[in-house]
Amino acid sequence: MPSDRRQLHLNLFLMGVGHHEAAWRHPRTDPAGLSSLAHYQRLAATAEAAAFDSVFLADGVEGPDPARANAWISHFEPFTLLSALAVSTERIGLIGTVSTGFTEPYNLARQFASLDHLSQGRAGWNIVTSAGDRAARNFNRTANQEHAVRYQRADEYLEVVRALWDSWEDDALLLDRENGLVTDSAKLHEINHSGEHFQVLGPLNIPRGPQGHPLLVQAGSSEDGRGFAARHAEAVFTAQQTLAEGQGFYADLKARAAALGRDPAGIVVLPGIVPVLGSTEAEAKALDQELDDLIDPTRAIGTLSTLLGVDLSDHPLDAPLPPLPPVAAINGAKSRFELVRDLAERDGLTLRQLVGRLGGGRGHQVLAGTPEQVADHIELWFGQGAADGFNIMPPILPDGLDLFAEHVVPLLRERGLFRTEYTGRTLREHYGLPRPANQYTSVAV
Amino acid sequence: MPSDRRQLHLNLFLMGVGHHEAAWRHPRTDPAGLSSLAHYQRLAATAEAAAFDSVFLADGVEGPDPARANAWISHFEPFTLLSALAVSTERIGLIGTVSTGFTEPYNLARQFASLDHLSQGRAGWNIVTSAGDRAARNFNRTANQEHAVRYQRADEYLEVVRALWDSWEDDALLLDRENGLVTDSAKLHEINHSGEHFQVLGPLNIPRGPQGHPLLVQAGSSEDGRGFAARHAEAVFTAQQTLAEGQGFYADLKARAAALGRDPAGIVVLPGIVPVLGSTEAEAKALDQELDDLIDPTRAIGTLSTLLGVDLSDHPLDAPLPPLPPVAAINGAKSRFELVRDLAERDGLTLRQLVGRLGGGRGHQVLAGTPEQVADHIELWFGQGAADGFNIMPPILPDGLDLFAEHVVPLLRERGLFRTEYTGRTLREHYGLPRPANQYTSVAV
Repeated sequence: MPSDRRQLHLNLFLMGVGHHEAAWRHPRTDPAGLSSLAHYQRLAATAEAAAFDSVFLADGVEGPDPARANAWISHFEPFTLLSALAVSTERIGLIGTVSTGFTEPYNLARQFASLDHLSQGRAGWNIVTSAGDRAARNFNRTANQEHAVRYQRADEYLEVVRALWDSWEDDALLLDRENGLVTDSAKLHEINHSGEHFQVLGPLNIPRGPQGHPLLVQAGSSEDGRGFAARHAEAVFTAQQTLAEGQGFYADLKARAAALGRDPAGIVVLPGIVPVLGSTEAEAKALDQELDDLIDPTRAIGTLSTLLGVDLSDHPLDAPLPPLPPVAAINGAKSRFELVRDLAERDGLTLRQLVGRLGGGRGHQVLAGTPEQVADHIELWFGQGAADGFNIMPPILPDGLDLFAEHVVPLLRERGLFRTEYTGRTLREHYGLPRPANQYTSVAV
Repeated sequence: MPSDRRQLHLNLFLMGVGHHEAAWRHPRTDPAGLSSLAHYQRLAATAEAAAFDSVFLADGVEGPDPARANAWISHFEPFTLLSALAVSTERIGLIGTVSTGFTEPYNLARQFASLDHLSQGRAGWNIVTSAGDRAARNFNRTANQEHAVRYQRADEYLEVVRALWDSWEDDALLLDRENGLVTDSAKLHEINHSGEHFQVLGPLNIPRGPQGHPLLVQAGSSEDGRGFAARHAEAVFTAQQTLAEGQGFYADLKARAAALGRDPAGIVVLPGIVPVLGSTEAEAKALDQELDDLIDPTRAIGTLSTLLGVDLSDHPLDAPLPPLPPVAAINGAKSRFELVRDLAERDGLTLRQLVGRLGGGRGHQVLAGTPEQVADHIELWFGQGAADGFNIMPPILPDGLDLFAEHVVPLLRERGLFRTEYTGRTLREHYGLPRPANQYTSVAV
């Protein structure tokens, strides 16, 4: 049923065989899916059949610590996996995470432009700055840079890659056989960037992509992260536990963008939710409990330690969380640190209780209930100024996505909240976001 | 017809709409193919239907110089394009060029491992060290490193990426649901590399690929390049103009490998040939002439200047080549420099004549003739110790590949020289090369 109502956006957050910490141990998953292209192709196909805006792949650049082990979840590298998915899908957007910390901007700009061409305008970049010394130690450094320095570097990085994406004007490619002109050299631009972190000549060695720039996505919710999002992001993934917190974050981000002269509608806010679905609430809660019962505390504490940037492996399981360092001392994901600390303090949780609480969605909101209950939640947050759409994180995959597509999506459509089919071709069009102008193209007056 | 004879190997060198300098201007090509995934999918499908061992993508990391322009040929980035082709093909190998100069070894090792998983064991890496200051200036440097330093760095780079590919033993992934063990931590290894150019902790964040390591390919024929190939390469692309030169190169490379204790059969030598095919020799030569007539001298001189690392753009077209600097002063592709210099001196060529001569294959051997003549050439070089197979560089694409597959491949099969269908699954199996042992796996005695 077509609708004039404001439409919500749905992204599928790809994560191995599910977002729950213990998904891979549940009888309704097949752990072989962790390393199977066919598994990811099936997920993308299901999301595309349901007309989701996009799929999204998280990423990191450190291997499992052999001393801790067991932390490994999923292994495909984003550019390679998303390029493969570009061939097996036709319409859905393809968002990959890449850090500004460990890839040369020329290589990143080029790989995203290539993905955007291959997919005919469906590439998106989730910009992260990467926490963690172990990652830095894979890249000629002994320790990671400070949080604020990473964001300063990321600002310059964005300046470089935008200029590279613009270094070919849209009509620079002539392919004029008669006159033997491949390109119009007046429409190719050296960028001659010389900054604190980067010196880059340009132009890029690939024409401007169908979208101009890939969709720019961001997920940091710290003070630095929000500032960065307001300056650069067009879509924002976020973890919010309550409606009030969600509304606060939403209003803050839109206000920050507006203060910088941006259209607040040009920054799409997508809280993460973990829909644990059952045909009754009791059935959903039973599944949630089954999954929690499969959590291996040692492995979960490893995950939590990485999340917090604080090693908790020697802390007794049944004691309350130890005093944590002040957030200023945290060089990792500051906003997630605060969310976890506040949750533990508010409810006086032991370490075992905390890993159970976080096992479902690493700080994202777990909704165990019926399709109606999940649809109600989505409608409420969407209608009450807390979300423009949602980052869907099924606890088990593909099962949890199948249930969402079969039972929740139809309810959202009945309520006039979600498209019945794609109306655009590119990822930007799905999200209702404009194609960026080229900084080198002079506008005729 | 099955055969016990030694079998030759065929690689398709992908290059836009053809290897001839003026391919894009010829009426039998469609220049839109330069930026079309469908074009590359069609080429890979044709090569796979003909049971070629592999397709191969060259690469560079500098954009077109706006002051020279018109030098742009083709634009997809290797990892993204080859990952897309991994989905649209099933058996053919996928070889991508990546420089050791401008990509972090952790990222490269990971992207090749991911491609190897996605393609189920079909990834190959053509290792280049990259010449040219313009490339370096895209990556925070003012000038490129010296030729010898680049090769030293490349040696260390290989040491790092091999260790990363081995950092997961083949059976490190357990996925033992009952006991909650994702990995066997005793089979995950930090590599703790600390060398002159790189400090890398490890392990990699992806399990060892189906092939262990991607197939290692190399194309440098200078003294440094040959030494590097003898140490590392399993397949070698090379440009050789005469049978005697081809035999000399072949014998030299096998001897160098043997001197290092390697099995000479473990290094496959693949000279490049440009088959300009016609149903008569006259027809083939007419096509060759048609293509040469379409060469734009300005553009071709730009290409030649880049190839030589010497700017010839101000040199009169109809004068003999100016005196060139000694090879020791060349920081680019030294062996190609010598080949071009010798060709111009031997035949006393003007600049215009030289670009005509090079327009067909940039120094590779152009064979304009009938399918029988091309098959004879292949059989001769293969039988006389100059080649283990060939790097096929059709002058126009897809047309020239179609003709080769339809008319030359059947002749090679009739003569018992080339497979009628794939017998292996992986790229290593196609080339008859072993899966490398893991340096961290202790062998039971």
